[in-house]
Amino acid sequence: MPDYKTPLRDIKFVMQELLNCEEHYQRLGYQDATPDMLDAILAEAAKFSEQVIAPINKSGDQEGCTWKDGEVTTPSGFKGAYQQYVDAGWPTLSHNVEFGGQGLPHSLNTHIGEMLSAANNSFSIYAGLSHGASATIEAHGTAVQKTMFMPKLVEGTWTGTMCLTEPHCGTDLGLLRTKAELNENGSYAITGTKIFISGGEHDLSENIIHIVIARIPGSPEGTRGISLFAVPKFNVTESGEIADRNSLICGSIEHKMGIHANSTCVMNFDGAKGYLIGKVNKGLNCMFTFMNAARLAVSNEGVASADASFQGALTYAKDRLQMRAISGVKNPDGPADAIIVHPDVRRMLLTQKSIAEGGRALVGYLAQLVDSSYAETDPELKVQAENKLALLTPIGKAFLTELGFEATSHGVQIFGGHGFIQEWGMEQLMRDARISMLYEGTTGIQALDLLARKILGSQGEIMKPFISEMVTFCQQNSSLEAMKPFITPIMEYSEEWQLLTQSVGKKAIKNPDEIGAASVDYLMYSGYIVLAYFWAKMAKVALTNIAAGSDDSFYQAKLKTAHFYFDRMLPRAKGHAACINTGGKSMMALNEEEFVF
Amino acid sequence: MPDYKTPLRDIKFVMQELLNCEEHYQRLGYQDATPDMLDAILAEAAKFSEQVIAPINKSGDQEGCTWKDGEVTTPSGFKGAYQQYVDAGWPTLSHNVEFGGQGLPHSLNTHIGEMLSAANNSFSIYAGLSHGASATIEAHGTAVQKTMFMPKLVEGTWTGTMCLTEPHCGTDLGLLRTKAELNENGSYAITGTKIFISGGEHDLSENIIHIVIARIPGSPEGTRGISLFAVPKFNVTESGEIADRNSLICGSIEHKMGIHANSTCVMNFDGAKGYLIGKVNKGLNCMFTFMNAARLAVSNEGVASADASFQGALTYAKDRLQMRAISGVKNPDGPADAIIVHPDVRRMLLTQKSIAEGGRALVGYLAQLVDSSYAETDPELKVQAENKLALLTPIGKAFLTELGFEATSHGVQIFGGHGFIQEWGMEQLMRDARISMLYEGTTGIQALDLLARKILGSQGEIMKPFISEMVTFCQQNSSLEAMKPFITPIMEYSEEWQLLTQSVGKKAIKNPDEIGAASVDYLMYSGYIVLAYFWAKMAKVALTNIAAGSDDSFYQAKLKTAHFYFDRMLPRAKGHAACINTGGKSMMALNEEEFVF
Repeated sequence: MPDYKTPLRDIKFVMQELLNCEEHYQRLGYQDATPDMLDAILAEAAKFSEQVIAPINKSGDQEGCTWKDGEVTTPSGFKGAYQQYVDAGWPTLSHNVEFGGQGLPHSLNTHIGEMLSAANNSFSIYAGLSHGASATIEAHGTAVQKTMFMPKLVEGTWTGTMCLTEPHCGTDLGLLRTKAELNENGSYAITGTKIFISGGEHDLSENIIHIVIARIPGSPEGTRGISLFAVPKFNVTESGEIADRNSLICGSIEHKMGIHANSTCVMNFDGAKGYLIGKVNKGLNCMFTFMNAARLAVSNEGVASADASFQGALTYAKDRLQMRAISGVKNPDGPADAIIVHPDVRRMLLTQKSIAEGGRALVGYLAQLVDSSYAETDPELKVQAENKLALLTPIGKAFLTELGFEATSHGVQIFGGHGFIQEWGMEQLMRDARISMLYEGTTGIQALDLLARKILGSQGEIMKPFISEMVTFCQQNSSLEAMKPFITPIMEYSEEWQLLTQSVGKKAIKNPDEIGAASVDYLMYSGYIVLAYFWAKMAKVALTNIAAGSDDSFYQAKLKTAHFYFDRMLPRAKGHAACINTGGKSMMALNEEEFVF
Repeated sequence: MPDYKTPLRDIKFVMQELLNCEEHYQRLGYQDATPDMLDAILAEAAKFSEQVIAPINKSGDQEGCTWKDGEVTTPSGFKGAYQQYVDAGWPTLSHNVEFGGQGLPHSLNTHIGEMLSAANNSFSIYAGLSHGASATIEAHGTAVQKTMFMPKLVEGTWTGTMCLTEPHCGTDLGLLRTKAELNENGSYAITGTKIFISGGEHDLSENIIHIVIARIPGSPEGTRGISLFAVPKFNVTESGEIADRNSLICGSIEHKMGIHANSTCVMNFDGAKGYLIGKVNKGLNCMFTFMNAARLAVSNEGVASADASFQGALTYAKDRLQMRAISGVKNPDGPADAIIVHPDVRRMLLTQKSIAEGGRALVGYLAQLVDSSYAETDPELKVQAENKLALLTPIGKAFLTELGFEATSHGVQIFGGHGFIQEWGMEQLMRDARISMLYEGTTGIQALDLLARKILGSQGEIMKPFISEMVTFCQQNSSLEAMKPFITPIMEYSEEWQLLTQSVGKKAIKNPDEIGAASVDYLMYSGYIVLAYFWAKMAKVALTNIAAGSDDSFYQAKLKTAHFYFDRMLPRAKGHAACINTGGKSMMALNEEEFVF
């Protein structure tokens, strides 16, 4: 596996030059997030990623987690690395100071999340889910619950999970069977089996706090009868001390295609003591706090996997000598030219690069929207931010993980046969990236969330703030000759985007299956135009610096990659548009007897 | 892993109803290939695939091959299964009767190859490569060599390999270093290291005959100095008996993403005795015999993996209850509807189905062309068949393996989180399918072979017989109302295909990099239109049967799947056309300093 090198220059470009984080942070009251402070933190995070967790990524894959008698042992080095992670205070970064956090912005944590994921995705999932669990308790827990759970979760000496899925239900949580019966002391006895619980059991932390959805007997059926509970592995006193073992156990761990070093657990709750979070039967609403943050984290996995694979592939492409350039010998002293001279190798490399860097910009933007959703004081701006976040979260989650996975496949392809061999690490990146299209809501679920619930559900209103932002950008830059190759297509595609939306909406009135039939192509189309906007914005920054006389090759590369995106990635949307326009008739035509093999 | 069920009905549909194999076989003199005989053979092959090798596919993946002191042990059950394979006479099927073969057509063997690959791809690779080795000796070997090697290879008690790749060269064989020095007795001493040798060492057969490319000292540099040799693991007397051990050894085996049960070997030749096949320095020409057959076999892997994944996914989609259909409850007695009611699940299933069945038709057609290239006596028809085969082989190899891999990913996706778990077998199909885009020439290499060498190299002449066949079909069916949804797009896309070809050709005159920049998109575009033609032909057969009063739901399913292909698969070509049209400028713009991370 190639050594992972944190793309610090590009992360700072996104934060500072593209998204002007200094003004953003000051406006939202993050006074501590000064440029110097950010630089120092990012540099330390880079060091941790490169030196502590990247080196155990491959060995973690090979060794995997082991289960014995209900206990899970993580691969060699993980416990020590996690201890360093805690000792350095990383879990506390963007938590509230009230609970021992550093009170730094969520968006800073998001960029660090990319580093962790790229360096060692299995490791980063342990960390990411803990963050989600504490965010849920912070948002919806009682004062006593916060005292019990928050300090240790924030500190990282305890970790957290998210227990939704059961054997018979994943997407369809309304079917869940785990029950929660009221104890005399006001706590609940949780009984049932949860599966696919990432980090449900491991040896990294002293305690594990499970955020569990369950049904209180007598509750309405379906999703309106779901409540949320905090269920600790070891019971916790009201002052937050560890007490006796709670009655829950890890029944087994899954053997998976990838992320071998992250334990995916079957958790059996047998009358385990749990604490109601939020109101009875309002569990799913509370869970959304968790899920939106988790979906942004998974978007980031798409970026991280694309970048890690790009790094490996680029290094190899510059090193591997094979064939001569069709346009003439480039390496006359060698037996052949480096494969980076071949246009198709460049096509794959630039596809990876444009996904990684474009995705990083989108994720950075989403993360700033999360900051605003927490801390914006102007109500109108806050609603705008929330609308943009609602629109773009499913796009980020599904589009970036689909493209991130594609990027890892290009990484394998650039290595030729060597890409298929474990030794090089390229195939691990591909296996590890495949999960991102599945968990926290599959691509299909994100596409329905986007098109049915959000866009058609709001009669298209939810698109307006973001489209207005794009149009304003285009208007402001339409007079610049060098920006025309970006502005013209954005205007055309965003027009087509709205027409496609209206067209699907009209068809859906007659036949609601048209929504599902269009949804994934629609989401992919949306992703290509959204990423085009961010590439255009990056091109603008690059052009501005070049015009001001900068000779930093970074800006040339950024500009040229933007052109590549518009030339070779954005036109893919044409295929999706054509598929959307043909509708769902042929998809629904086969009856059950015809659907056989 | 779902039980594999051989798609006998569809294989017979392709052979008999679509491609009229009865007439084809009679014309080429395959008198034994009567319908009854074909039925009996296909039924036996299905039984072998389903009952002998499918059951050891998952265990083979988990156990893998093991290497010790130069010897490789295949996973439990493989040795026994291979023995059954030999005992039943499967290796002999399409071999010349002169060497103990049954003299049946190559195309029959190809359809059986699909079954073997779908049931257990690792197993089928051992068998497939042996066939390639014997075909090479049969085509280019001397009478003595044929006596030495053919009977046992045909019988299957010996197996064969193809030793091309070396650590520093895969695609660029001109760089090879393995040397062949003339011995006094006329044999050669082969010295060098070959890697990625599938089946280079194993415990299935008594002997292994390696077909090795090497350089005779004093030969010209590059590909014009490559000769071909047969190098047995155990030396062989002139009468074909096993003698002492030859000086070659398996140095290690690779740990790979997939096909764990197929040994991928590093082979060290240390003055091993080898026999020149064909003429000195003409090794690559002889090797093409092997490679074309191998590329067709790999195309078949795309079909096989798509079908196996479709079978698993369809079974799950009918069984798994999750959410209600958006168009209204379909399973009122159950807690939810089967996920096959959801349009997006159907989109994925029909994508798999249209790849598997469309690919099967294309592979069947290619296999008949191979029959014709061997046995056609009319010189004009023979040239036509060879031209079509040359045009369509790289398309079949690259397009079908890319789409086959995509299909396996849909299979994982339909299973949701369960798709990522090894237990279900869906992720194994995906890992096993990934190799097909790499070996026997990557997708990029196939794309260059198609566009640069064959199409532009012939000024487009090579396209003419196939396009003429398509146009004739369209003309013959243009008056049928029910065929219009197929005929109109084929005419449009095939027109665009030719325009794209001319446009790339023109750009390439000014800048040869435009060929490589367009090549993969061009190949994918070509694949979509070629498969459209086969789907149109299948629709025609279905319509004819329906018009004649058939109430077989098979024809309805075929017709509806054809509509799906034209509605939702063919339009993807629009995205590829748009990418081709933007050219390669942005791809080549980054200089080396700008290509960094």
